[in-house]
Amino acid sequence: MSKKVGIICIGDELINGYTIDNNSNFIASKIRKFDNLDISNIFVVGDDLVSISDNLDYLMGKNINYIFITGGLGPTHDDLTKKVLCEYFNCELKICEKHYQKLYDKYPSKKKNHIKSQSEILEISQPIPNDIGTALSMHFMFKGITFFILPGVPLEVNKAMVNYILPDYIEPFYKMNNSVLTILTSGIYESSLYNRLKDIIEEWRDKIKVAFLPGYSGVKIRLTSLDSNISKDTFTQFKNLVEYKIKKYIYGYDDDKLNHIIGEILLKERKTLAVAESCTGGYLSKVITDVPGSSSYFKGGIVSYSNDMKVKILGIKSDVINEYGAVSKEVAVLMSENIRKKCNSDYGISTTGIAGPTGGSRNKPVGRVYISISTKKNTICKEFTFSDQRKINRNITIYISLFLLKKSIEIKK
Amino acid sequence: MSKKVGIICIGDELINGYTIDNNSNFIASKIRKFDNLDISNIFVVGDDLVSISDNLDYLMGKNINYIFITGGLGPTHDDLTKKVLCEYFNCELKICEKHYQKLYDKYPSKKKNHIKSQSEILEISQPIPNDIGTALSMHFMFKGITFFILPGVPLEVNKAMVNYILPDYIEPFYKMNNSVLTILTSGIYESSLYNRLKDIIEEWRDKIKVAFLPGYSGVKIRLTSLDSNISKDTFTQFKNLVEYKIKKYIYGYDDDKLNHIIGEILLKERKTLAVAESCTGGYLSKVITDVPGSSSYFKGGIVSYSNDMKVKILGIKSDVINEYGAVSKEVAVLMSENIRKKCNSDYGISTTGIAGPTGGSRNKPVGRVYISISTKKNTICKEFTFSDQRKINRNITIYISLFLLKKSIEIKK
Repeated sequence: MSKKVGIICIGDELINGYTIDNNSNFIASKIRKFDNLDISNIFVVGDDLVSISDNLDYLMGKNINYIFITGGLGPTHDDLTKKVLCEYFNCELKICEKHYQKLYDKYPSKKKNHIKSQSEILEISQPIPNDIGTALSMHFMFKGITFFILPGVPLEVNKAMVNYILPDYIEPFYKMNNSVLTILTSGIYESSLYNRLKDIIEEWRDKIKVAFLPGYSGVKIRLTSLDSNISKDTFTQFKNLVEYKIKKYIYGYDDDKLNHIIGEILLKERKTLAVAESCTGGYLSKVITDVPGSSSYFKGGIVSYSNDMKVKILGIKSDVINEYGAVSKEVAVLMSENIRKKCNSDYGISTTGIAGPTGGSRNKPVGRVYISISTKKNTICKEFTFSDQRKINRNITIYISLFLLKKSIEIKK
Repeated sequence: MSKKVGIICIGDELINGYTIDNNSNFIASKIRKFDNLDISNIFVVGDDLVSISDNLDYLMGKNINYIFITGGLGPTHDDLTKKVLCEYFNCELKICEKHYQKLYDKYPSKKKNHIKSQSEILEISQPIPNDIGTALSMHFMFKGITFFILPGVPLEVNKAMVNYILPDYIEPFYKMNNSVLTILTSGIYESSLYNRLKDIIEEWRDKIKVAFLPGYSGVKIRLTSLDSNISKDTFTQFKNLVEYKIKKYIYGYDDDKLNHIIGEILLKERKTLAVAESCTGGYLSKVITDVPGSSSYFKGGIVSYSNDMKVKILGIKSDVINEYGAVSKEVAVLMSENIRKKCNSDYGISTTGIAGPTGGSRNKPVGRVYISISTKKNTICKEFTFSDQRKINRNITIYISLFLLKKSIEIKK
């Protein structure tokens, strides 16, 4: 039978909407990968004694097996988590000398009572190291429930989960599930995907659930086994059927990111890339350079946000801009070709469009975007009309550009 | 006495960590601005009958006055919210003919039962229009608690809150609080801010609480009155004292964004801007062009991610790069000056640095960044050493660049 997991995220910042709670999302995204572990509740509460106790009462009455608590371990008077837990579990604090010494050596100028408070944990608990911050995490068992108490800083939660909690307390006891898979697609609408897949979805409906999740980067298709005893082969058989029908739209699986995938391909093929952006205004270059090591294949880009720059720096004749407009297939093609030549790269990408909210016309409404990919051998350009929302238009343009680039690289192989 | 607000966000995507819950954050950020309204609980649950009922039971037992529920109003079989609520409140659904007709007119090809399900609300409720999506929102009162039932799509929640719920049900009954203010600073560390302010914080500690909240964009200083009866004048007096001590580091208040502030200043002064980026790889241009209308003052930028581009497109002599390195004060200065001249703009900004995780050396560690601002009259350049994390280095560089630009514009006035 499945074990149940509850998460409590503590912080006045969270409950008052100053800060988005990323921790519960991170913890849940790791936990869901195991068979027989279900996340049943996520709570967000303020730094408030009564609310925290109430939430604990609730979870302890719901047959929960694991409780994660994040936040409120800092050294200031707002940080109440340890105080509440001591009261709740009727225990004192103890000091972890090893952690104290580590902090003392690292921050000799810090106040001693600050270092002390960051080294204290519940006397009923054992420490979990904090590899990058000061507040010590801890774990303990109470009435059959395993508790993990973590700081609020997302990077510290990340390290505690990945370096200690998963390898020491979860992985030895739970199998990774092989009956959930997310297939990442781009360049096709949800409804078209559904039409291509509806027969096999119908045929397999008792065995595997298929969910379509549209987003900026495309539509994700999540396959979930409805029976945890389904064999890996059967699941793979269904996956293969799905893939066969929509092969050319798939760019990856699960946590894959298009910018990282493209980086790997370009590195492997020793090819280089340059970008000329108009409507995306630097965003495409930003996403490409989010990837560590991207300087090996990304030569750079030009954000030609004004016609002047398209003429002077990209060398596009002003006649062409006057005749067809800066947002046109003709200009997009010249942008991708000229940036490729200027940077002496293997691939050139360009974007030009009307991001909005204003600037649209009858012929070229807000949301109209041209994306062009140029190689030494040929240049393609596609026209799109996305939405009336600037943010959506900019985001979708990035991911379609990267997807078209990936297609282009694959064709060249 | 304060009224209490609870929020329940429903969705398998949320509880399993596939999607971050932004809705509770958005709702909370709006609600917290009113006196006598406190958010006491945020719950995230899956599309699961029992969990949703349990969470409702919990909230209904806690003297809550308002309950917001988001998610699960879509037309698929996963969307259970209305079903659960009908059971919970022992009522049927009714159809909103006006909404049905609106959807029918807009999407004549959509299936009728799809349109019908999106137009149904609880018979005990009244509709709240959905200005951009299909699922109708609703509100009702039960045992003295006011319920708002909203879709899960963040933009739809945004519109429902801003266009209907706040103006119709909240603003008429609650005063905006004038005893909370967030002062936004940049270019100074938390500890230095604290040192400058500690005397007045101490002196006023019984009246006003001061919290320091560091982030990528700088340190936010939140002032909160500890006594809701404190007069506006007294609060302003304290605010003025704080501002006097740290004036030159303040760039805005509350929800202000540096990119929007700079946009407004440049528009007003009719000045233009161009950017040459190395370590930020397009991110600075992206943040500048996130602002609608930025094409009026942003001429464009060059992402000179390779030395080749610094030489060929920015016209920096390769001798300079060879002598001082691409990450140097000398190169940063030439980048900001050359981009300004090339684009014929009033201001030029440049960034060059070692974002990491690799590429550092003893003299220039990962995190070393040079930012330069150039005007027709002079050029400044500052050296920083941020962190060993690529993401942090890129983010901080963006905000410090914008802050230095703002300072530069103000000096010119």
